[in-house]
Amino acid sequence: MNPATRPLSEAATLAPRTLDADAAREVDALWRAANYLTVGQIYLMDNPLLREELVSEHVKPRLLGHWGTSPGLNFVYAHLNRAIRAHELNAMYVIGPGHGGPALFANTWLEGTYTETEPGVTRDLDGMHRLFRQFSFPGGVPSHVAPQVPGSIHEGGELGYSLAHAYGAAFDNPDLLVACVVGDGEAETGPLATSWHANKFLNPATDGAVLPILHLNGYKIANPAVLARIPRAELDALLRGYGYEPHYVEGHEPAAMHELMASTVDRVVTDIRAIQCEARISATAPVRPRWPVIVLRTPKGWTGPSEVDGVKVEGTWRAHQVPLPGVRENPEHLRQLERWMRSYRPEELFDLDGRPLAEVTAMIPVGDRRMGATPHANGGLLLRPLDLPDPRSHAAPCERPGVTLSEPTRVLGRYLREVIERDSARRDFRLFGPDETASNRLDAVYEVTGKQWTGETLPVDEHLVRDGRVSEVLSEHLCQGWLEGYLLTGRHGLFSCYEAFVHIVDSMVNQHAKWLKISRHLPWRRPIASLNYLITSHVWRQDNNGFSHQDPGFIDHVMNKKAEVVRVYLPPDTNTLLSVAAHCLASRDYINVIVAGKNDSPVWLDADTAALHCARGAGIFTWAGNEGDNEPDVVLACAGDVPTVEVLAATSLLRQHLPWLRARVVNVVDLMRLQPDTEHPHGMTDPEFDALFTTHTPVIFAYHGYPWLIHRLTYRRTNHPNLHVRGYKEEGTTTTPFDMLVRNDMDRFQLVIDVIDRVTALGPRAAAVRQQMTDARQRHHVWIREHGEDLPEVRDWTWNPPK
Amino acid sequence: MNPATRPLSEAATLAPRTLDADAAREVDALWRAANYLTVGQIYLMDNPLLREELVSEHVKPRLLGHWGTSPGLNFVYAHLNRAIRAHELNAMYVIGPGHGGPALFANTWLEGTYTETEPGVTRDLDGMHRLFRQFSFPGGVPSHVAPQVPGSIHEGGELGYSLAHAYGAAFDNPDLLVACVVGDGEAETGPLATSWHANKFLNPATDGAVLPILHLNGYKIANPAVLARIPRAELDALLRGYGYEPHYVEGHEPAAMHELMASTVDRVVTDIRAIQCEARISATAPVRPRWPVIVLRTPKGWTGPSEVDGVKVEGTWRAHQVPLPGVRENPEHLRQLERWMRSYRPEELFDLDGRPLAEVTAMIPVGDRRMGATPHANGGLLLRPLDLPDPRSHAAPCERPGVTLSEPTRVLGRYLREVIERDSARRDFRLFGPDETASNRLDAVYEVTGKQWTGETLPVDEHLVRDGRVSEVLSEHLCQGWLEGYLLTGRHGLFSCYEAFVHIVDSMVNQHAKWLKISRHLPWRRPIASLNYLITSHVWRQDNNGFSHQDPGFIDHVMNKKAEVVRVYLPPDTNTLLSVAAHCLASRDYINVIVAGKNDSPVWLDADTAALHCARGAGIFTWAGNEGDNEPDVVLACAGDVPTVEVLAATSLLRQHLPWLRARVVNVVDLMRLQPDTEHPHGMTDPEFDALFTTHTPVIFAYHGYPWLIHRLTYRRTNHPNLHVRGYKEEGTTTTPFDMLVRNDMDRFQLVIDVIDRVTALGPRAAAVRQQMTDARQRHHVWIREHGEDLPEVRDWTWNPPK
Repeated sequence: MNPATRPLSEAATLAPRTLDADAAREVDALWRAANYLTVGQIYLMDNPLLREELVSEHVKPRLLGHWGTSPGLNFVYAHLNRAIRAHELNAMYVIGPGHGGPALFANTWLEGTYTETEPGVTRDLDGMHRLFRQFSFPGGVPSHVAPQVPGSIHEGGELGYSLAHAYGAAFDNPDLLVACVVGDGEAETGPLATSWHANKFLNPATDGAVLPILHLNGYKIANPAVLARIPRAELDALLRGYGYEPHYVEGHEPAAMHELMASTVDRVVTDIRAIQCEARISATAPVRPRWPVIVLRTPKGWTGPSEVDGVKVEGTWRAHQVPLPGVRENPEHLRQLERWMRSYRPEELFDLDGRPLAEVTAMIPVGDRRMGATPHANGGLLLRPLDLPDPRSHAAPCERPGVTLSEPTRVLGRYLREVIERDSARRDFRLFGPDETASNRLDAVYEVTGKQWTGETLPVDEHLVRDGRVSEVLSEHLCQGWLEGYLLTGRHGLFSCYEAFVHIVDSMVNQHAKWLKISRHLPWRRPIASLNYLITSHVWRQDNNGFSHQDPGFIDHVMNKKAEVVRVYLPPDTNTLLSVAAHCLASRDYINVIVAGKNDSPVWLDADTAALHCARGAGIFTWAGNEGDNEPDVVLACAGDVPTVEVLAATSLLRQHLPWLRARVVNVVDLMRLQPDTEHPHGMTDPEFDALFTTHTPVIFAYHGYPWLIHRLTYRRTNHPNLHVRGYKEEGTTTTPFDMLVRNDMDRFQLVIDVIDRVTALGPRAAAVRQQMTDARQRHHVWIREHGEDLPEVRDWTWNPPK
Repeated sequence: MNPATRPLSEAATLAPRTLDADAAREVDALWRAANYLTVGQIYLMDNPLLREELVSEHVKPRLLGHWGTSPGLNFVYAHLNRAIRAHELNAMYVIGPGHGGPALFANTWLEGTYTETEPGVTRDLDGMHRLFRQFSFPGGVPSHVAPQVPGSIHEGGELGYSLAHAYGAAFDNPDLLVACVVGDGEAETGPLATSWHANKFLNPATDGAVLPILHLNGYKIANPAVLARIPRAELDALLRGYGYEPHYVEGHEPAAMHELMASTVDRVVTDIRAIQCEARISATAPVRPRWPVIVLRTPKGWTGPSEVDGVKVEGTWRAHQVPLPGVRENPEHLRQLERWMRSYRPEELFDLDGRPLAEVTAMIPVGDRRMGATPHANGGLLLRPLDLPDPRSHAAPCERPGVTLSEPTRVLGRYLREVIERDSARRDFRLFGPDETASNRLDAVYEVTGKQWTGETLPVDEHLVRDGRVSEVLSEHLCQGWLEGYLLTGRHGLFSCYEAFVHIVDSMVNQHAKWLKISRHLPWRRPIASLNYLITSHVWRQDNNGFSHQDPGFIDHVMNKKAEVVRVYLPPDTNTLLSVAAHCLASRDYINVIVAGKNDSPVWLDADTAALHCARGAGIFTWAGNEGDNEPDVVLACAGDVPTVEVLAATSLLRQHLPWLRARVVNVVDLMRLQPDTEHPHGMTDPEFDALFTTHTPVIFAYHGYPWLIHRLTYRRTNHPNLHVRGYKEEGTTTTPFDMLVRNDMDRFQLVIDVIDRVTALGPRAAAVRQQMTDARQRHHVWIREHGEDLPEVRDWTWNPPK
């Protein structure tokens, strides 16, 4: 007899008991109901309650879904429900094995939250029919945990981020318990492996608790899982080494497992409360307590077919997806499916109208305590706009363009300091970064906060506090995962990162972009704060490092995501950076990428002009050009801080050497403006584009990143054939900033050469000027090898406006 | 007195001793010499041996480099040298803290290998002068470990991959010891955190040994490191939990540390040999032994300035880069630098000509035992071409195009089975993948090999062996890191991966591409086998999953790398896949991306035609078009297996409904062919391009990935204004393959509509046909919601050639 189908009475006499007989029956009924609904979703088009004998016409034509992990997820869900009621917990879940989508649809349907978000799928026979049919069905719901699942903040497709998301959700939510199921497959990924260490950054007094549940069901798609195949002593040492106290729930006999799980959950909830209580009332509490972790070891595909066609399935990798693959064609498989589904005794779980019976729902919490209803998992419900200072109040002085110097991110640091100060009572804004907040010159924030750290400290340490607004760890994965978890639960944040290494989270960005794209079209999902990147140590200023630190391709990566989700800003100076940052921090449901340098550079625009320029996204720097009321002979365009300096230096040279040439300078802050308005909501219309770039004049465009991106954005424009783009072309090493420009042919001398090569009828002097520029590049090469620094004329260059 | 400068005699009497007095002096002299040369590289332009008083003109204008980690790296290098001599080891190193570049330049200069690769930097005073000057200097060498460093296989810029590289190097190298320094900063990254588990995949009988040296120097750029701030008991538990036996070398007093490190290294080398000996002669040896790990805890910036300007530097994060920042301007800093450098007693280390004295070189091994000279770290020296079968011997039958069906990757699996068979004696080819070799239908390889696994096994497991050619772990980072390590040490491999999740290693690909770009221009670095990706579960066939598994952007990502390094292939069928795969496996120094489906699909080309088509990279499918001897009215182009089917289906519809329209079908296998020949070595000349795509005819291009990539590649071509591209535009869910095409407007009906909308003068029938196509799309929507599968006319479609 399948253990799952055995009546509970035999085991029910075991002592000592956490579950009395009623509770044991109720938690088991809930589990069986969820398992039944899981199988139904994978297999059935019709006959949802098995009112008639199952025939192949009731079965879906394409059998898709993942059974293997689902009974374990259902088991956890049932027991969390019990604990929420028993302890009045404020809890949410994060499901690492996110391909167990049907388990979560089942549980949220049972608790009623699914119907609240998708009213057509009622909690009755008709709704059950739709629930089954829609799953992994064209036009229906996906097979993975996704935004469509109430209570989820987790895109379940790509593995590795559950625990990081859970910690991000728990930060600054002192009353929240985040239960996080970690699959043993997922546990092999790098991001998950380092996420265990997040306990060194969680403050028991001011943050909530994360309860990791390591689910060892033994197998991945085709292989055993590493953590399921190391000796218990090693596993125990590993989890203790990560700083946790392990509790083991292992077995397969349902009654015994219910009792063991219930008592273990009660125990760990008590331990968590004791830790929090001590931390919140006692000054001598340990800074970093030993948090509990549950190790749940159950067979893969638990309660499913034990054998199929003579080979073992339950407890093996063969249970991963659809354990009975041939149901529509193979009568034996069909009979086995029916036996399997009936083993859950649906007649004891649902009434004639398909509604779950009282025994099934007895363990389910009510109202917002239901995990599918917690507002924390629909963060927009809790989101409050940040109290943002006016960026103009922090503006760098700018009497005339280019006269004063300023370090853009240092000034932004002061702005963020005020953001944090204003937020001190609310505590819903954090900065994340891999060890670089100070290196990126945002360190003014340390005047009002510190880096949250609950590891050991030494007297020489600086800015380490138990409760700080800065989270730093040398893992871009953890930073990104924490920030995503923080945003998805209704808070605000900024991730500052080296440009080259933000590629480490490319794949995580994809998943977040996909989450946002879907969420934006689910009316019940409320908008959340945007995911903001500040990329400050960028390709052109890697003076201390070199080639390995030079890659501006993250912009290209995010541009592939849906236009409604992504925004890229390249502010040319301090005041535009402030304006862009304030805009991004106030925005919702976007991924904003801001690229800005940290080194001293000229302030081009005063605060008001900067705000206007950023609002327009792109515009003519009239003070820098000399077209007057005429048509320009050439357009020099720039996007990015370093390219802007270089274009302005090139226009100086042009005015000096070819004063009759009429040049226009166009600066692009918002890269999406370049696209057609049909492709992106920020895109310019063709007349707007033509007004800036003309329809026929040569355009020399100096761009921060890989040059072909500009072509990709503009290939449909009238003047595209005259567009010539300079940018980074993978030439670099440890060298001076100007040498980087020369190596990539984006230096001022080359830009002048580009103008001369493209503007016709420049007169006889042009050839001589061209030679002078070539000579200057040659002089640079000689000088830098000799002196290790840039030509004095470059080093000491300052902007002089046209007369 | 700085401990580093104290004569060794005081400590030299401690008992019991591994180092006698001579050895203790020699290892210390080597360490001091390397430290001296490290400081010299960071600071000095001139006066390298301090023959005269140091003045600011001797100091570099830009002080760049990382001192903090370097003395520890030098300490390790000196002791590995000693152990290589003492135990006749065949050893190489991998340096996780790769920003310690000057330490490695110092050591390889001392052992002579640097001069052998860079003859201008002689091992004398003139060479020392050049060594110092070139470091982090324009036109010189980068500040990080890089291809320029002999003995390195490791790009030191991005942290996290050292241990994965080390294991990859050790696979199938039974006599090799790979010493791998793991920095405590790097240890926080996800990839490193999971790399510890690689010991479950290393076979002590047939693989070499990895000796991890976890270097706890306490700080990153600005923060304490997590592993340096957990209690010893937790650290010990963690490393034991990972399956290692920890050995601790902790302190700062040089003499005691030398003795402790020497005795510890002797102990672990003896343990490693005992493990290997047992595994190689005894059938009862443990499958997975407990390998040793050394924990080295030393102060950051050890032996450097203890305090600067009254604040503590040695042993803190302030020692990370340049501990005395103001040397050129601040006379006190200048004096402190001179004292620091003289504390190493250079006069005892170098003769008057700047050559290292005998006491310094006594511990250095000779010939290829020097770590900078091991051929394993210049893998091309050891590389032997694979004995590749003729792909035609595995070809799928193809009497006429499109008549037979074939699963491309299943056939490739048979080809790879033969590759592995032929390689069985040499053992220098491996397949890597995250749990998907069978799912990707390459499982024919299991007829001749298995998955290497040294964890516990159960009777139900399949294909797990101690010594196999397949390495599977659910971490794309580990797969990529292992493969890189395997290739860089002169072997061959293939990484098969889900398309969406290969983005997980975007950043690792960047670093490998940068490594290859630099290596190709270092004549002493011999070419290595290419890094080959097989992307099989691609965006169009994620039937079991959904939106989260749909992202074809990896192609865009690799396209940003240097043209000489990257290649992208989209074979349209089984026989072209075989041809492309054989080509890639034989190639050198590239990153090859092959995108190919696993599902049954038509075979379009017989083996010979496929080989020719792949050699051309792009060509006209004359059998599919109906232009005859005339100019075509439209070109239908395709790149990718699914787009090819769809384009051919569209041409069928066109022939049926608009028989007078002359269509040409162009198929692109090698995506780089689309670029101008000036941009990529595979690029077509304009006349070649025009011959395929014409100069004036509308082109409808169905492309596998994001459509704008095709525009980026072709915007300079004459006919670009007439090019209309369809591709994936981020619309997807769990649905049928054909519905995916409809959602992204790349289905056959839409392609016909595109043709009608772009070809002028099609006659009165065109509007009616257009309406029919629109109706067909509508019919699809209704049918699929009802039946959950595709329209019968689509499902049962087969190719009929033009008459």
